[in-house]
Amino acid sequence: MSFQFATRTKGLRSSAIRDLLKVTEMPNMLSLAGGLPTPDSFPLPDLRREADRLLGEFGPRVVQYSATDGMVELRQWLSQHYTVELQRPVAIDGEIVVTHGSQQALDLLAKILVDPGDVVVSESPAYLGAVQAFELFEPRFEVIPGDEHGMKVELLAEQLAAGLRPKLVYVVPNFHNPSGATLSLERRQLLARLADEYELLIVEDDPYGAIRFAGAELPPVAAFTTRVVHLSTFSKVVAPGFRVGWMIGPPEVMAMVARAKQAADLHTATFPQLLLANIVSQPGWLDAQKARIVPMYRERYHALSTALHHIVGDRIRFHHPEGGMFLWTHVDGVADTKQLLTHAVEHGVAFVPGSAFTIDQTPDSKARLSYSALSPEQLGEAVARLARGLAAYDAAR
Amino acid sequence: MSFQFATRTKGLRSSAIRDLLKVTEMPNMLSLAGGLPTPDSFPLPDLRREADRLLGEFGPRVVQYSATDGMVELRQWLSQHYTVELQRPVAIDGEIVVTHGSQQALDLLAKILVDPGDVVVSESPAYLGAVQAFELFEPRFEVIPGDEHGMKVELLAEQLAAGLRPKLVYVVPNFHNPSGATLSLERRQLLARLADEYELLIVEDDPYGAIRFAGAELPPVAAFTTRVVHLSTFSKVVAPGFRVGWMIGPPEVMAMVARAKQAADLHTATFPQLLLANIVSQPGWLDAQKARIVPMYRERYHALSTALHHIVGDRIRFHHPEGGMFLWTHVDGVADTKQLLTHAVEHGVAFVPGSAFTIDQTPDSKARLSYSALSPEQLGEAVARLARGLAAYDAAR
Repeated sequence: MSFQFATRTKGLRSSAIRDLLKVTEMPNMLSLAGGLPTPDSFPLPDLRREADRLLGEFGPRVVQYSATDGMVELRQWLSQHYTVELQRPVAIDGEIVVTHGSQQALDLLAKILVDPGDVVVSESPAYLGAVQAFELFEPRFEVIPGDEHGMKVELLAEQLAAGLRPKLVYVVPNFHNPSGATLSLERRQLLARLADEYELLIVEDDPYGAIRFAGAELPPVAAFTTRVVHLSTFSKVVAPGFRVGWMIGPPEVMAMVARAKQAADLHTATFPQLLLANIVSQPGWLDAQKARIVPMYRERYHALSTALHHIVGDRIRFHHPEGGMFLWTHVDGVADTKQLLTHAVEHGVAFVPGSAFTIDQTPDSKARLSYSALSPEQLGEAVARLARGLAAYDAAR
Repeated sequence: MSFQFATRTKGLRSSAIRDLLKVTEMPNMLSLAGGLPTPDSFPLPDLRREADRLLGEFGPRVVQYSATDGMVELRQWLSQHYTVELQRPVAIDGEIVVTHGSQQALDLLAKILVDPGDVVVSESPAYLGAVQAFELFEPRFEVIPGDEHGMKVELLAEQLAAGLRPKLVYVVPNFHNPSGATLSLERRQLLARLADEYELLIVEDDPYGAIRFAGAELPPVAAFTTRVVHLSTFSKVVAPGFRVGWMIGPPEVMAMVARAKQAADLHTATFPQLLLANIVSQPGWLDAQKARIVPMYRERYHALSTALHHIVGDRIRFHHPEGGMFLWTHVDGVADTKQLLTHAVEHGVAFVPGSAFTIDQTPDSKARLSYSALSPEQLGEAVARLARGLAAYDAAR
């Protein structure tokens, strides 16, 4: 069907990950590709009990329209939580907006801030969902490389000194997707100082921070400057299927965010907000949940990294993450991991090629291996299949 | 705090309705302003039973990440429902995208279709939420006046013949918000013919269609042409607090919508989709729910219109809607109903002035009175207060 308008894509890119999920639905496929939380981590009995209480005792307001910035019960909990986390008062009104998952926060920020040609600073490799959200508003990406300690903020400092003036700087501080890197304390502090000096807005996206299985917790960038919009979510620490995330930021930015949110979807669904707020507000609940689920991720991380070491050896190298869901690997002797993927899939295992996490999608030797959704036994088998895929790749050269 | 970037609003307007809600939260205020569904209409026992079953028996997938276009259980039901409604097959894959409420559908359509300066055709008065969603992408609105039979499509035909080439034509066919008007069969058919002739895209937004308490049901515009994206929602017929809506449209448009949806929020929350799909899929459930709730709206509509007739008389005139939630009234002798509102609020009743529903917000003599959220007794009292506010307005002249 043709239309009066020329249909265009306005910078829409389909997610390579999303397209890959079609492959991962094949029978008997072991997928290291997705970023799904461990299903065992979901607190189904607690959710069931609280859902029953809400729908039985709380009356019609639990399913009625509600406020654009979020249910007050959830904003109260967030206010308390972040007043501790950031070591300064975070107001219930004006500094918090509840979003339909963290992804929506990225979309809203892009919508209010980014005009075509504006500079957005991002790490490389980059979280693909953020690139997709920003890309629609046609920014110019300025890519700052990272290492195992996160974005090389000292390179950003040089660029700012040379005249770079970004609309926003996007960082994932903990257990980055895909790199697994954690931004060092020194770089967090430097980034905060740069924000103050150059009047920057930092977007600190922290979905994984609660899943730390090694090393010491670090304060968020938002603890060092108020020029931060801090994003997080219940997706990894409770469950993703409720799509409840949030933004904490300066009132002048959050007022614009709230207006964009109203135009985007009126408000985040009422019932999921209340359900999750009531659960996490129970004294000690969140600590107990973390104590229950962090060992699941630690065990899976060990299973994958140990199997790689034993079965593949030095051919696949990676830095050891301190938490999260991903191993970011370098595959020696493979110039384009998309070609390795073809062989891997034939042997029943999938992963995401590194080029999916770059702005320009240049082929590279990287592969993101997720350990979150398979059991330790499955992870061992997945690595055995990957080794066979690698052998087939070599044989085909 | 100042930022490197000049903070702008990119066409964001705050909702006059939303701002008014602050007034309506005052103690003892009777609000005819909001558009909240009748709380008595929510099927809380059914929701409770199904939530318990889902969280108890269905396993972790009910709270896991899910597909961007929506849960297959819900798309199956929508496919069956619209195959009957549109009298042609509607595919489960490719023609349906589940959205976080109908409002998100408007945002996604604007995002993929509207560039600055593009023409968007809208009725006048207009649904404010649609204006807000489109406005962010800076279209030029071409306003077609309406009467009690909806948009004067014959005027649109003249404009098209004269060369108008809109990116999309936005209509609310049933019990329009705010006008209460229902688009006549002849105008639906003419609009469909114009869409085919000029290769237009029609956006048919039908949140209220199920709440018909008088007159005969009419086929949607989408039954007469495939050049329609049809929007609807569970917000009015089940409950709004789950934010589950949907779009049915041509595959080439829906493919773009799905990619924009992925960038916007990955997918609509999993659990609410399954909860509502399982409830409405029970044989006879939706018909029984409509049979239960439509009389509630009919009774409230009668209470408000009768009270206006008895207490205020001919001073406040309106056409009688055949369904929905709103009386769209003309107040004789009041040039700007915003000024009447001030007096009304002092007497304990709120409504929305007509100018809130125009693109340019020019003052007028119109007022939207919602009968959905108050009991029949409260509606009588609200009208008594409105009469006192009107007397005070007159006295102040």
